[in-house]
Amino acid sequence: MIILGVDPGTNITGYGLIEYTNNKFRRISHGVINLPSSKPIPERLKIIYDELSNLLKIYKPDEFAIETAFYGKNVQSVMKIGYARGVSILAAIHNKIPASEYSPREVKKAVVGRGAASKDQVSYMVKAILNVKKIKFKPDESDALAIALCHAFRLKAPTFKKSKSWKEFVEANPNRVIK
Amino acid sequence: MIILGVDPGTNITGYGLIEYTNNKFRRISHGVINLPSSKPIPERLKIIYDELSNLLKIYKPDEFAIETAFYGKNVQSVMKIGYARGVSILAAIHNKIPASEYSPREVKKAVVGRGAASKDQVSYMVKAILNVKKIKFKPDESDALAIALCHAFRLKAPTFKKSKSWKEFVEANPNRVIK
Repeated sequence: MIILGVDPGTNITGYGLIEYTNNKFRRISHGVINLPSSKPIPERLKIIYDELSNLLKIYKPDEFAIETAFYGKNVQSVMKIGYARGVSILAAIHNKIPASEYSPREVKKAVVGRGAASKDQVSYMVKAILNVKKIKFKPDESDALAIALCHAFRLKAPTFKKSKSWKEFVEANPNRVIK
Repeated sequence: MIILGVDPGTNITGYGLIEYTNNKFRRISHGVINLPSSKPIPERLKIIYDELSNLLKIYKPDEFAIETAFYGKNVQSVMKIGYARGVSILAAIHNKIPASEYSPREVKKAVVGRGAASKDQVSYMVKAILNVKKIKFKPDESDALAIALCHAFRLKAPTFKKSKSWKEFVEANPNRVIK
């Protein structure tokens, strides 16, 4: 199973693709989509949507995971992150891939074991789990890979029921879709 | 010139289409996109994008206007409105229509003359300007028409320079694009 994790923002959007088979995790790809501040927001949203759509078409992941809202930023920033998340989720559903959402706390807890883990700890554990200690990830890249891993851990849990269609998935997993 | 005004939300998205020719305003169409709360957010975003894309294809507006962030709501609500705005702006740029953004205050000031006007006052003035006193608008519909009218008033201003392409528009009107 292939999972695309995305950490969306209107300045930088990070992504990470992992494969999860027979209880093993493998990094497939990772990167950042740089959104130049010289470009207006509509163009940046188009770039995010187009780049993610490309990744979805190339790698055909089975699942898509994204980070939820976080607090403490001002309303304008939250709104802009909302723009980026909205078009990211749209790219997933346009490609018929179920989208799941995790809070930063859930992601850290899943990967490091502590909801209050630092970015460095997340990056360290992502490298250890994916066995790629020599790769230097940018923060948005390791965050995106951590989101994908967090989703894989959820799928590993015995309560998970694999669905064939988006509709079936939604019915079977009401808690895993963004309400 | 045809303008599409949109008041996006993940529960209800209002829209209003007006024509502005020879200093006269005419209502072309208005309505709401109802997003059932039973559907997960990704599906609702798809509905907003699809419905707006349909309107853009049918009516081929020259301009697209949307309301900006407002304050006082909690972070989760702001994020969700951000999702809806993100996919609305994406629908505009995918159809190569310049997107402009106005604050609720600017919209009220343009239509009623007072930035602190009530919803009823906005609705009353929208009906008066469009000469459709018998139509009963839903709040999201009159808001969307007010956004379109606000944009028309901006275009009426002598500083406005009409551009042929999105690129030219952005260069000529750096203040009218969402940064």
